[in-house]
Amino acid sequence: MNTLEPQLQITIVTIIVTGVGIVLGTVVPAWVEGKAVLKALEGITRQPESANDLRTTLLISMALLESTAIYVLLVMLILLFANPLLDRFF
Amino acid sequence: MNTLEPQLQITIVTIIVTGVGIVLGTVVPAWVEGKAVLKALEGITRQPESANDLRTTLLISMALLESTAIYVLLVMLILLFANPLLDRFF
Amino acid sequence: MNTLEPQLQITIVTIIVTGVGIVLGTVVPAWVEGKAVLKALEGITRQPESANDLRTTLLISMALLESTAIYVLLVMLILLFANPLLDRFF
Amino acid sequence: MNTLEPQLQITIVTIIVTGVGIVLGTVVPAWVEGKAVLKALEGITRQPESANDLRTTLLISMALLESTAIYVLLVMLILLFANPLLDRFF
Amino acid sequence: MNTLEPQLQITIVTIIVTGVGIVLGTVVPAWVEGKAVLKALEGITRQPESANDLRTTLLISMALLESTAIYVLLVMLILLFANPLLDRFF
Repeated sequence: MNTLEPQLQITIVTIIVTGVGIVLGTVVPAWVEGKAVLKALEGITRQPESANDLRTTLLISMALLESTAIYVLLVMLILLFANPLLDRFF
Repeated sequence: MNTLEPQLQITIVTIIVTGVGIVLGTVVPAWVEGKAVLKALEGITRQPESANDLRTTLLISMALLESTAIYVLLVMLILLFANPLLDRFF
Repeated sequence: MNTLEPQLQITIVTIIVTGVGIVLGTVVPAWVEGKAVLKALEGITRQPESANDLRTTLLISMALLESTAIYVLLVMLILLFANPLLDRFF
Repeated sequence: MNTLEPQLQITIVTIIVTGVGIVLGTVVPAWVEGKAVLKALEGITRQPESANDLRTTLLISMALLESTAIYVLLVMLILLFANPLLDRFF
Repeated sequence: MNTLEPQLQITIVTIIVTGVGIVLGTVVPAWVEGKAVLKALEGITRQPESANDLRTTLLISMALLESTAIYVLLVMLILLFANPLLDRFF
């Protein structure tokens, strides 16, 4: 039991942090991207001749916004698979 | 009982985190995607000649939004099936 | 009783998480899909000549929205049938 | 147990700080970038002839805003992989 | 344990301070920069002929604002890599 204790704490903390973190870290990008999509669709409806401009701007912006979600995913995967601090416990 | 205790805690934490996480992580993308669909349908109704532009923009955007839900799904599946921290407990 | 205790806790947690999760995880997609259907039907009524565009957009969008519900279903079924953490308890 | 104790505390603190930090540190840039995208799309709709100006301004601004998220990511990665204070513990 | 104690405290304090600090120190610049971007985009929409003036002003301002985030980043990196007070402990 003694030897398992630190591993247990680390494992539970990691599970909670990664699980909660990835959810919170993707919710905000998804939300603002969604609002941007609404605006773009609205714009195409009102100014059909600007459709290309709107779509280009939207897609580049979404790619940039998506990157914040990917940063979160990156850190979470590191915490799970490549956390260098854990080498001594496991 | 002593040997089961850590496994029990980890299992319960994992079940709760994955169950709650996947729900919260898919709700927001689904919600904003749905609102985008509404706007697109509204736009096609008002500007039938823009239908192609609207549909293209909508589908690319939904694919990008869907990706945030997939990040969450990915982390949840890792927590369930490939959590490398668990190797020592089970 | 001692040997049953952990199994009991896990079973109760699993029942609650899967039961609550699948409901919450399907409610939002169902809700926004329903609103999309309303909008599409309204659009077809006002612009009968756009019926094909509206129907195509609606169906592809619903398939994408449905996928978020399927992610939730997937995780719930895994929790019930293929939870790899449970091998040691049962 | 004695020798593991400091390592354990540091590891848990690091996991929590990096997990929480990257989420909080990406949420605000994502949020304000999203609002900037909304404004730009709205502007293109109302002034289609300014589309290029708006898009250029938007993208340069997003790159600058993105940099704050990258600072956070940088510090988090340093805490995980290159924290020089940890040399003595591990 | 005795010899490790001060190092442990310093390390944990450093991790928390740098992690929390970089997040707080980038959030506010990102937020006000984002609001400046909004205003600039709004201005370009309403006065397309002022686009160059607005963009130039915006970018110089953002560079200056960004500098506050860089000061925070600088101090955090010093705390991590070059804290002169730590020489006696490590």
